[in-house]
Amino acid sequence: MRAVARANANVALVKYWGKRDESLVLPQHGSISLTLDGLSTTVRVAFDPALGNDDIRMGGLPAGEKERGRVSAFLDLVRHRARTALRAAVDSESTVPLASGLASSAAAYAALALAASAAAGLSLDAEELSRLARQGSGSACRSIHGGFVEWQRGEAPDGSDSIAHQLLVPHAWEVCDVIALCGSGEKEVSSRDGMRRSVNTSIFYPAWLAAAEHDLTTMRLAIADRNFTALGLTAERNALRMHATALGADPPIRYWNAGTLAVMERVERLRATGISAYCTVDAGPHVHVLTPLETVPSVQAALADLPMVHGVLRCGQGGGATLIEAS
Amino acid sequence: MRAVARANANVALVKYWGKRDESLVLPQHGSISLTLDGLSTTVRVAFDPALGNDDIRMGGLPAGEKERGRVSAFLDLVRHRARTALRAAVDSESTVPLASGLASSAAAYAALALAASAAAGLSLDAEELSRLARQGSGSACRSIHGGFVEWQRGEAPDGSDSIAHQLLVPHAWEVCDVIALCGSGEKEVSSRDGMRRSVNTSIFYPAWLAAAEHDLTTMRLAIADRNFTALGLTAERNALRMHATALGADPPIRYWNAGTLAVMERVERLRATGISAYCTVDAGPHVHVLTPLETVPSVQAALADLPMVHGVLRCGQGGGATLIEAS
Repeated sequence: MRAVARANANVALVKYWGKRDESLVLPQHGSISLTLDGLSTTVRVAFDPALGNDDIRMGGLPAGEKERGRVSAFLDLVRHRARTALRAAVDSESTVPLASGLASSAAAYAALALAASAAAGLSLDAEELSRLARQGSGSACRSIHGGFVEWQRGEAPDGSDSIAHQLLVPHAWEVCDVIALCGSGEKEVSSRDGMRRSVNTSIFYPAWLAAAEHDLTTMRLAIADRNFTALGLTAERNALRMHATALGADPPIRYWNAGTLAVMERVERLRATGISAYCTVDAGPHVHVLTPLETVPSVQAALADLPMVHGVLRCGQGGGATLIEAS
Repeated sequence: MRAVARANANVALVKYWGKRDESLVLPQHGSISLTLDGLSTTVRVAFDPALGNDDIRMGGLPAGEKERGRVSAFLDLVRHRARTALRAAVDSESTVPLASGLASSAAAYAALALAASAAAGLSLDAEELSRLARQGSGSACRSIHGGFVEWQRGEAPDGSDSIAHQLLVPHAWEVCDVIALCGSGEKEVSSRDGMRRSVNTSIFYPAWLAAAEHDLTTMRLAIADRNFTALGLTAERNALRMHATALGADPPIRYWNAGTLAVMERVERLRATGISAYCTVDAGPHVHVLTPLETVPSVQAALADLPMVHGVLRCGQGGGATLIEAS
C-alpha cells in the first residue's frame, strides 16, 4: 500500500515537440534523450482507506490546484488498472534546485508511475511503466530508463506502442551535461502550450516534423558509433530547429533570453579553442552544454563567470527509475 | 563627368531573404522597407581620362580588394550603358558610425547608382535608378525612394521588373526606428552568404517564402491604414521568421547575441507597460525598435542603460536618393 521510487531527469538530444493526441500524450514524432544523474525526484505514495481525497504534496507542502488535478488524474489510471478506489497520499522531493526553473516533470512522473503502481500492488515491467509514465508527462516515459533512451512515436491509436526503450551503448562512453541556469524569472510559455501552438500555428511545423525523423536516424548512428561530434552537432542543430519552429508560431514563442545567447556565444568560442561542447535548449532559457567527461571542468569554468548565468549544474549519465521501498 | 549624390539607409519591415538569381540580384520574394534619415552615405564619382584603373576609396582611404572589385563591376554597368570606357575616381562618406557594424551597402549603392549615372551623363528616372542600384546591392533599390518602399519581386528573367516603388502614405505618419547597437565584434555570416545558405539548405525556406508573400499583403494594408500595431506586429513576426529560417540552415546561422535578446526582452516589457514598440533584426545582432515619434524618448531611455548595448541611434523617416552636385 506504500512505495517510494526515484527517477532522474533527462535531456532530449532529439527534442519531443508536438503531440498528435493531447489526452493520451502521443507525440508527433520520436525523440532521443540522455538520462542525467544528480537531478532526481523521489516520490512516496501511500494508498489509504482513511483518505476521502488524494493528498498531493511537494516537499511536504500542499501542491497547487493545477498540479493536484494532474496528479489525481494520473492516479486514476493506476487505480483503474489495480481495480481500487482508494485515495492516496503523495509527496515528492526533488534534488533540482528550487526556483532554478528547470522542469522536473519527467523525473516526477517517472517516479510517480513506479511508486504508485507498486503501492497499488501492480508489478509493471519497464515497457508498461514507460507507457504509464508517458500519460503523466510525455518525456517521463524516457526517464524510466537510464543512459541513452529513445521514445518511439508508435502508430497505435490507443498509444500502446508509444513507449521508450534504452539504446544500448558501452558504459565506458560518458557524455556529460553542464547546465547553465539562465532563468530570468519571467513567465514562460509552458512546453505543453508551446507545443500546441507550434503544432497548430507554426509555419515551420511540417518541416520540423520531417527533420526530426531524419535527426533520429543520425542520432541513433552517432550513439551506436560513440561519435561525440556527430551527437553534439545533431543535438545542437535539432534544438535550434525546435526553437525556430516555436519562433514561427503565431504569435511567436521565444524561450531564449540574453543569458541563453551569452552561453551559446561562449560555447562557440570554446569550440574554436578545440573543446568539444554543444548546446541544447529545452522549452526555457537554460542551456544544456553537452561535453565529454574530460572537458567538463573547462566547460564549467567557462560558463561560471558569465554575468547572466545564475548557476551551473554538472550532470553525468543517470540510471533508470528505481523502487526504493515498498510495503 | 563629376557628380555627388547622397542616399539613406533603410530598414526592412518585410525582409529580403534569398535570391533567385545571384548575378542579376533578383529576389525570391518582395520586401517592404522604411527609408531612414540620419544614416546616409554620400558618394562622389568622377570619370577621368587620366585614370588607368578605377580608384575606389571610402572616407579618402583605398577600399579593400573585395569592395574595389564589387564597385568596379557596378561601374561597368554604368559604363556599358553610357558607352564609355573611362575609369572613375569614387569616394564615399557615411554618417553611419564606424565600427557600429550597421550595414550601409543599401545607402552606398543607391548613392553610387545616382552619382555614377549622373557623372556618366545619363539621366535615369527613379525606376531605372532602382533597377541599377539593385545590381550593386539588392536592398539598395529601396533606398532610391524615401518613406515606405516596396521592392517587387518581378517575373522577368532579365530583372527588368524587379524594382522598388514608394508606398504612398500621408506624411503625417511618422514611424521611427531606435537602433540598439549590439555588436560583439565577432565575425558574422554576411547577409549574402546567409541568404545563399538559407535558400540552399534551410528546411524552413519554402515555408518562409510562402509567409513572406502573406506578410507583404498584411504590411501594405497596415501602411495604407496607418495601423502602427499591425505594422509592428507584422514586422516583428516577419523578422523572427527570417532568423528562424537562418537557424534552420545547415550548418545553422545565428545572427543574435546576448545583447539582441536583452533588447528583445526589454521591448517586450515596454510593451507590457503600454508603449507601442516592436523589434526587427537584420542579418546581424543589432535591433531596430520601431515606435511612433512620441514614444521615441521612452524607448531610447529604456535601451540606453542595457549593459550589452553599445550605442543607441535614433532615426526618423528619410527621403529618397538625391543628387547634390553634377558638373
